Amino acid sequence: MHTKYLEDFEAGQVFQTRGMSMDESEIMDFARKYDPQPIHTDREAAATGPFEGLIASGWHTAAMVFRLWVDLGFLEKSSLGGPGVENLRWHLPVRPGDTLHTEVEILEARPSKSKPDRGILRYLTRGINQRGETVITIDSSSFLKRRPENAA
Amino acid sequence: MHTKYLEDFEAGQVFQTRGMSMDESEIMDFARKYDPQPIHTDREAAATGPFEGLIASGWHTAAMVFRLWVDLGFLEKSSLGGPGVENLRWHLPVRPGDTLHTEVEILEARPSKSKPDRGILRYLTRGINQRGETVITIDSSSFLKRRPENAA
Repeated sequence: MHTKYLEDFEAGQVFQTRGMSMDESEIMDFARKYDPQPIHTDREAAATGPFEGLIASGWHTAAMVFRLWVDLGFLEKSSLGGPGVENLRWHLPVRPGDTLHTEVEILEARPSKSKPDRGILRYLTRGINQRGETVITIDSSSFLKRRPENAA
Repeated sequence: MHTKYLEDFEAGQVFQTRGMSMDESEIMDFARKYDPQPIHTDREAAATGPFEGLIASGWHTAAMVFRLWVDLGFLEKSSLGGPGVENLRWHLPVRPGDTLHTEVEILEARPSKSKPDRGILRYLTRGINQRGETVITIDSSSFLKRRPENAA
């Protein structure tokens, strides 16, 4: 786990995470708490629904894919939160047993004009399943500290 | 719980949900699973961090606010999933003990040109705390069934 500050990122860099599988009980647990729709919580109802089977909540997929990126540990000491998400697309359903990994492509690392200790990192996060298919893309930003020696 | 189909929505409608409080243990539980950063999981570390205290993961806030909308039950039989989110903003931190409710404003309800049984609903979701402050906005879309009698 080695902290990366704003200066350690540049457009074009790509980072890969480990994979993690989404099992049925976890899909249902998340959905019961945060997205209680039958396509996420009820195997029988889901079977006759629009996806012909249980699928993960889109919010679950987003959180999971983001978590794999957090697990790399780069931002643990440098993150100052984030303003939001420019665009998020659910391209394909995630089903029980699917294994996802995350690919993060850096789009921009720009120092703040008004606050010399920080900057903004914009990056495209892709969640990819075991068949190499992109299931989700998230275009988002984080506020990040600059290296302490450059922040004066 | 009364299902609403595409025809039951029109631009300008506003729906309010009940409130729900975010307690510290739930904030930490979510973050340990989906966003394991010290500002969400470690009370002491968070106290000296950029928000001077523990705050909820932005993904937790998004899921929670969306869940309150799902709980209204309008889309239980009519939802066909969603393509994504146009824009999501975290305006203010959510702290342990905050109570959030959701306000959903319908932006557009448009029948599909190619598929006569469905359409797309675009709506702005606002998460609002106990002080009336908007903590999150989500501009997103869902695919929705048309009324069965109109879908032929």
